[in-house]
Amino acid sequence: MNNFTKTSIAEEARVELHDRLALTGAEISVNALPAGASVPFVHAHKQNEEIYGILGGEGVAVIDGERVSLKAGDWLKIAPAAKRQFFASDRAELRYLCIQVKENSLEGFTMTDAVVY
Amino acid sequence: MNNFTKTSIAEEARVELHDRLALTGAEISVNALPAGASVPFVHAHKQNEEIYGILGGEGVAVIDGERVSLKAGDWLKIAPAAKRQFFASDRAELRYLCIQVKENSLEGFTMTDAVVY
Repeated sequence: MNNFTKTSIAEEARVELHDRLALTGAEISVNALPAGASVPFVHAHKQNEEIYGILGGEGVAVIDGERVSLKAGDWLKIAPAAKRQFFASDRAELRYLCIQVKENSLEGFTMTDAVVY
Repeated sequence: MNNFTKTSIAEEARVELHDRLALTGAEISVNALPAGASVPFVHAHKQNEEIYGILGGEGVAVIDGERVSLKAGDWLKIAPAAKRQFFASDRAELRYLCIQVKENSLEGFTMTDAVVY
C-alpha cells in the first residue's frame, strides 16, 4: 500500500509518528506531560521550525526567556534557533502535538498545490 | 517578535494556520465537519504529502477508492497523488487536523536536528 499509511494511538506519554507512518516531510509527536512535570531540558533546532498545538490541559512554554501561557486551542510556531522548554501546570496534564518541519521548505499549498476532481 | 508566533483558536468550522502563524514549512488546518457532511470534492496534491490526525468524532476517508474508517486517535499519511475525500459519520461531527508538507523535504529531525542545552 503506497498511497497511504495509518496508525491509531492510545493513551501514551509520547508517540512519534515519523517511522510509524513513513512520513517524509515532517516528524510529529503526540505528547502528554503529567501535571507538575516539564520536558527535562532546553532545546533549539538546526534547520527545523516547530509547531506546537495544545490539545488539552494547561502549562507554560519558556521561549528565549519569555513565559508564554498555554491552554487547549493554542498554537505556537517557534523558529529553529529559539531556545524552548515546556512545563505542565501543577493542576493538569498538558497534552500537545509537536510538528517538526524544515524551515522554508513549503512551496505551494492548498489551492496552489491541490488538484481538484 | 521573530522567535515565535502564537494564536488561539475557538470552535470554528475551519482554521488555517499558515498565515496566522507565519508558517514556512507547513500549512495546518483545524477542521470540524458536521455529522452527515463531507468535504464536497475529491482532491489530490502536486507536491505535498498530507497528514491527517483525528481529534474527535468518527467518519470515513475514501483514498483511491478504498474506504478507511476514522475515529479519535487515528493518524493517516496520504501521498500527494492519491485521490482523497473525507466524510463525517451520520452520528457525530468529525474533528481533524490536516497538515500539508512538501514530500521528501525533511532532513534531520529530533536528535539529529536538535541542539540541547
